[in-house]
Amino acid sequence: MKTDREQAVFEAGIKLGALYHQWVGTPISRNSASGVECAIEQAVILQPFVEEITVHLNRNLMTENTFGYSELSGLMFEVEIITRVGFTYCRARLAPENGYPLMRIAECNEIPGVSHN
Amino acid sequence: MKTDREQAVFEAGIKLGALYHQWVGTPISRNSASGVECAIEQAVILQPFVEEITVHLNRNLMTENTFGYSELSGLMFEVEIITRVGFTYCRARLAPENGYPLMRIAECNEIPGVSHN
Amino acid sequence: MKTDREQAVFEAGIKLGALYHQWVGTPISRNSASGVECAIEQAVILQPFVEEITVHLNRNLMTENTFGYSELSGLMFEVEIITRVGFTYCRARLAPENGYPLMRIAECNEIPGVSHN
Amino acid sequence: MKTDREQAVFEAGIKLGALYHQWVGTPISRNSASGVECAIEQAVILQPFVEEITVHLNRNLMTENTFGYSELSGLMFEVEIITRVGFTYCRARLAPENGYPLMRIAECNEIPGVSHN
Repeated sequence: MKTDREQAVFEAGIKLGALYHQWVGTPISRNSASGVECAIEQAVILQPFVEEITVHLNRNLMTENTFGYSELSGLMFEVEIITRVGFTYCRARLAPENGYPLMRIAECNEIPGVSHN
Repeated sequence: MKTDREQAVFEAGIKLGALYHQWVGTPISRNSASGVECAIEQAVILQPFVEEITVHLNRNLMTENTFGYSELSGLMFEVEIITRVGFTYCRARLAPENGYPLMRIAECNEIPGVSHN
Repeated sequence: MKTDREQAVFEAGIKLGALYHQWVGTPISRNSASGVECAIEQAVILQPFVEEITVHLNRNLMTENTFGYSELSGLMFEVEIITRVGFTYCRARLAPENGYPLMRIAECNEIPGVSHN
Repeated sequence: MKTDREQAVFEAGIKLGALYHQWVGTPISRNSASGVECAIEQAVILQPFVEEITVHLNRNLMTENTFGYSELSGLMFEVEIITRVGFTYCRARLAPENGYPLMRIAECNEIPGVSHN
């Protein structure tokens, strides 16, 4: 049996995997980064079971190539997402860890529903 | 506390979301489809916690455009993935459901570990 | 010998091919479309030899799936780009034609340089 | 007026820009690289005006991350493409130059058509 908690976790994984591979490779600069952050947030929030998403792209890694711009790479992502299924929330993150863009579950919480009495 | 089961589910979600957005849009035809299936499988199996992955792309949806080819679209995907964390397996799928490329958990199973006696 | 005109044309092709495959598959809705248009424009303008870029995404094709959003597809793109190499401009377009997202050169123009007398 | 030569150049640009942004980010290893090379070649050859395409991915850059694989990055690409429009061929390349994945026209050639006498 699949629980709400498991599905919330599954949905968080889907969204992190999806956004990574959708946007990696995008030409980017320190000036354009905030627009890309917004565009990613707006795209992710459309998807089912997403409650909140915040995307920060690490400007320090945006070193300019010979033509004066950079390319969105996996290690630039600092993302937190909250998904909800029923009364269960999952908070998950994408952020660099030991040089790898790691996705991990931060926590899951069931909120008390309305009384069933 | 995050369980092995939850992480297995999370990892399955990541891989399905990732492969979808990595390969959607690829030029494809009925002749080239099997090569793309293999390439996707080989890419996914490299990733952590993936035990098995099978990718089938629905040839019936590969209608030729004016230049004689098609483009890999979400509804063409029929994917089954098995992830493992510790002794827990998660089997998940991506397949069309009511005109939407739905990702869902099929089942999770704990296998009995070696005796701890 | 490669002329400025040929390179301007080449650069226009690169940018149209690139943006198409970078953004196809992005979750999108009529509300989020203008943010995506901006993000694409800001990404393309960073690249070498790009003078101007305008991106319009056809809202009429953004029919809602079962979860209330859509996915950026090739036929939604209406793009005009102007590249410049030396004194030569190339204007090119990406827009649907007979059901295919066609990229084509609209025109090339040399502008008279400063007098060489 | 757009010439065959200009269109051949334009088409080469489109294909190089497209393949770059379609495949960047793909999980890859030295073992899986040849399958990805084939899949890219098979996808590009489907597109209009493409005569030949060879894709080599630089294994030396495929350093293993903490999970034992790598990610396809722009500098790994060594691509040569030949497009043809009418009797004009364009040969173009994507390869690293000064740390940038540069796309450039190698040469264009008109071949003598059959006699019109």
